[in-house]
Amino acid sequence: MISVVNLSLVFNSFLRINSIEYKSTKVGFENFPTTPLNFRQNLTSSLTRSVRINSSRMSAIKTCGEIHSDGSSYDSNGSVRCHEKGRRFGNIVWHKCSVEKIDRQELLQQKGCVIWITGLSGSGKSTLACALTRALHSRGKLTYILDGDNVRHGLNSDLTFKPEDRAENIRRIREVAKLFSDAGVICIASVISPYRKDRDACRSILPDGDFIEVFMDMPLHVCEARDPKGLYKLARAGKIEGFTGVDDPYEPPLNAEITIQMEGEVCSPPEVMAEKVISYLDAKEYLQA
Amino acid sequence: MISVVNLSLVFNSFLRINSIEYKSTKVGFENFPTTPLNFRQNLTSSLTRSVRINSSRMSAIKTCGEIHSDGSSYDSNGSVRCHEKGRRFGNIVWHKCSVEKIDRQELLQQKGCVIWITGLSGSGKSTLACALTRALHSRGKLTYILDGDNVRHGLNSDLTFKPEDRAENIRRIREVAKLFSDAGVICIASVISPYRKDRDACRSILPDGDFIEVFMDMPLHVCEARDPKGLYKLARAGKIEGFTGVDDPYEPPLNAEITIQMEGEVCSPPEVMAEKVISYLDAKEYLQA
Repeated sequence: MISVVNLSLVFNSFLRINSIEYKSTKVGFENFPTTPLNFRQNLTSSLTRSVRINSSRMSAIKTCGEIHSDGSSYDSNGSVRCHEKGRRFGNIVWHKCSVEKIDRQELLQQKGCVIWITGLSGSGKSTLACALTRALHSRGKLTYILDGDNVRHGLNSDLTFKPEDRAENIRRIREVAKLFSDAGVICIASVISPYRKDRDACRSILPDGDFIEVFMDMPLHVCEARDPKGLYKLARAGKIEGFTGVDDPYEPPLNAEITIQMEGEVCSPPEVMAEKVISYLDAKEYLQA
Repeated sequence: MISVVNLSLVFNSFLRINSIEYKSTKVGFENFPTTPLNFRQNLTSSLTRSVRINSSRMSAIKTCGEIHSDGSSYDSNGSVRCHEKGRRFGNIVWHKCSVEKIDRQELLQQKGCVIWITGLSGSGKSTLACALTRALHSRGKLTYILDGDNVRHGLNSDLTFKPEDRAENIRRIREVAKLFSDAGVICIASVISPYRKDRDACRSILPDGDFIEVFMDMPLHVCEARDPKGLYKLARAGKIEGFTGVDDPYEPPLNAEITIQMEGEVCSPPEVMAEKVISYLDAKEYLQA
C-alpha cells in the first residue's frame, strides 16, 4: 500500500526544488507527508481523536467508479472524487484533494448521509428534524439541519414560490445536502418537496444508500387542523396559490426508507419518531466510520 | 441556569398530554430532556467525546444580538439563532432547534468559520486549500473545501460566466460557507472572487471574526506563467471574455486577515503557507471550542 501525494503541481517551477513526491508505507499519521514544517511536532493536546487514512483507501482510489453528470465520481466508499485523470469540463477543472469523505468519516466516527424528511406542511418535519438532531448530538454525532424555510432566508432568498422557483429551491437544497454529506455530516433536510422527481433527483446524485427518505405520512386533515404556521387558513382563503395539499398535489414516496404514521388517532412523540430513524441509521452502520 | 425546551408546539393537541416542558438545572447530558425513550441508556461505545451544552449558553440565549437581513441573529458565541419571539418573515417562519452552533463546536472542539482564499487564477488558492485541509485534518479538525470550480459542477451548474452569474456564483458560495460555518466546520472557500464588494458581503453575513480573508498576493505575470489550467492562454487569444487579470479587474483586499506573498522570486511551499493560516487560527482560538 503506497500513498503518493504530489503537492508540487503548481509550484514546481517556482520552488526550484525537485518535484515533491511523498511516499509512505504506513497507515496513520505516517501517511501525512514529512514536510519542511513537521506538523507532528505541532500537534496540540486538542487532538484527541485518531486521524488516519482508512486502510482500504488506496485500493478504493484505484477502483474509481462511474462518472456522474457533474464530473465527479464515487469510489466504493462513497467518496466524491474526480476521475483519475483530472478530467476537464469546458473550462472548469475538478480539483482533487487528499482529504476525502472517508477520512472525514473516520474523524467523526460516522458516515455522511442525507436524511430527507418529506411531507405536507404541518406534518411534523421540522419537529422530527429537531428531535433527531438532539438525539444524534447526544450520541456524539455531527448533524446539520437544512430546513426548507430557513434556507429561504439565505441561499434561496432570491426564489419565489412559483413552480420553477420551488423546483430550484429543492435543487439547491439537494446540492448543498450532498456537500454536507460529502463533508461527513449527517445532513437532515426538512422540506415539503411534494414531487417525486425532485426527491428522486436527490437520491440519484448521492452514493447508494446515502439518501434516506423519511415520509411524514400524516393525513391532510390532521396537518390542516394543526396549521402551526396558519398557512392552510391563508391557502383556503385564496391568499396563497399552489399550496401543497390544497391546490397543488403531494406525491407520496413509493419506496421511502422510513415512513412515520399516526397510530390510530395518536402521533408518536418526536423522540419516538427520532428513535425509529436512529435505529435505521444504526442498522445501516451510519453511526460508525 | 435553566434550560427550557418546548417540544410540543405541533403535537400538543394530538398527544393528549400536557405541554411538555423540560427543565434541567445541570450542565452535561442532564441538559437533554428525559424522554419516554431514555437515550442515555442507548448510548453506545461509539460515543467517545464529551457532549454538553456550553455553560455560557443560557445567558447567551438571553442576549440575542442584532437581527440580520435574513431574519437570523447571532448571540455572543456566534450561533445563528432566530429572534426570541420566532419572528415571521412573510409566510416563512424561522424554525429554531435546541442544538446550536455552540454545541456542535463543543462536539468538534473547534470553532466554525470561513477561510476565504481569494486571488488570481493560478495564484495557488486550491493548492493552499488542499495543504490547509490536510494539515488541519492531521490535527483532528473538520474542514470542508468549497472550491469555486468544483461548486460549478453541482450547486452552481446553472450559472454562466456572465457578470451577474459570477456574482450569483459567489453569493451562493458565501451562503453555503455560512451554513458550513454554522455547522461548526472550518470551511475553506477557494474562489477568485475579484470584487471587494462580494467578499465584503460574505464578511457581513458572518459573526465577527468568523470571516478570515486570505489574499494570495501573487503577481499577474507569475500566475500567467504558471497558467495551470491554460486559461490565460485562452483569454489572451480572445477565447474567454472577462477573464480576471486580463480583461476584467481584480480588486485586492484592503484588510485581509492573512496575505500570502512570494519571498523575492520564491514561493513558499504549500505547507508553509498553510502553517501561516493555522497560526492565525490558533491565535484566535478557532482550533478549540
